Amino acid sequence: MSTIDALNWRYAVKKMNGQPVEQEKVDKIIAAAHLAPTSSGLQPFRVIVITNQELKEKIAPIAYNQSQIIDSSHLLVFAAQEKYTDEGIDKVFDRMNTERGLPLDTTDAYKTQLKGMLLSKSADENFQHAAKQAYLAFGVAIAEAALLKVDATPMEGFNAPALDELLGLDKKGLKSVTLLPLGHRDENGDWLANLKKVRTPKEEFVIEFK
Amino acid sequence: MSTIDALNWRYAVKKMNGQPVEQEKVDKIIAAAHLAPTSSGLQPFRVIVITNQELKEKIAPIAYNQSQIIDSSHLLVFAAQEKYTDEGIDKVFDRMNTERGLPLDTTDAYKTQLKGMLLSKSADENFQHAAKQAYLAFGVAIAEAALLKVDATPMEGFNAPALDELLGLDKKGLKSVTLLPLGHRDENGDWLANLKKVRTPKEEFVIEFK
Repeated sequence: MSTIDALNWRYAVKKMNGQPVEQEKVDKIIAAAHLAPTSSGLQPFRVIVITNQELKEKIAPIAYNQSQIIDSSHLLVFAAQEKYTDEGIDKVFDRMNTERGLPLDTTDAYKTQLKGMLLSKSADENFQHAAKQAYLAFGVAIAEAALLKVDATPMEGFNAPALDELLGLDKKGLKSVTLLPLGHRDENGDWLANLKKVRTPKEEFVIEFK
Repeated sequence: MSTIDALNWRYAVKKMNGQPVEQEKVDKIIAAAHLAPTSSGLQPFRVIVITNQELKEKIAPIAYNQSQIIDSSHLLVFAAQEKYTDEGIDKVFDRMNTERGLPLDTTDAYKTQLKGMLLSKSADENFQHAAKQAYLAFGVAIAEAALLKVDATPMEGFNAPALDELLGLDKKGLKSVTLLPLGHRDENGDWLANLKKVRTPKEEFVIEFK
């Protein structure tokens, strides 16, 4: 299936049927997010994978009781770093150079410039930047899910601070930004299943300079 | 090619060889961004496609003279709405209902709630939210480019206000957030071409609740 066909097939499923997604497919969706490019390779986010049913039931009320939280087999949470740190940036570049067999100081000039830029900004600006990287990977994960014919409902509507506390993300310096329950559509029970996908007309969406 | 293979094949090409990308592939990359899901279907961003060489030469100096700007055949700019508006939200829902053959007031309760939430926020909060939707679509476009074996270099490093003025985006209520030059790698001329792709170890990247 082409990506375009896959993206036309997918939609934000409102009712899942409870059938589990094969672990192999979940692994590929996570691998896609893991391989997504990020600003300077910092990967300032994590993917939390929740299969524990009791925990999903605790999450539902802090996500407007959206039924997909409970009816999904795997609930992914994309959580971004609350800020960048000197040590965190060092760790990324040290690993990069080590794995490439290069001296650790290879990237020092670039790293110093990057730190000057990121560490001079406010924690909120850092978090917004990190969150955008998470959204990029979120997009890659959604595309991969569609290509694997796995239903995935992108969600922003939840109480992020409550979720962070429940999952202990605050203690890890992370803040949740999006949810992605994975499962399979209940075509008969989902009011959105047969409604036309609507987008901004292409001629309005694309602006050309030839 | 699987998505995972495609994402392993891709990298942030630093030197392109000037060979043009087939228009058919560019159209698919843009179609993927166009089909990407967005918050409440608002699609608060546009994709600008620049093939004009003179214009790319003017853009290069406001993007640290990165050579891919000029050596790409198509330079995409993802630009987000600077804020949400009452009329803009109406337009999206009116189109959605019209294309679905539903009365225009079908979504009024939801729309009122959404407006209450978005229009009470600051312009900067609106823009950050819109920019995140653009990043999600940017991720989908990057994945599609890789699947089509088109090189694409995601870029955040440029003077956005200067680009907005040059392209007249400010007059359209848009602010550029990312660039995506499309082209083909110059494997001999690119220092990054043969360096190992490095990522956070999977066991650190993924947090499981079983």
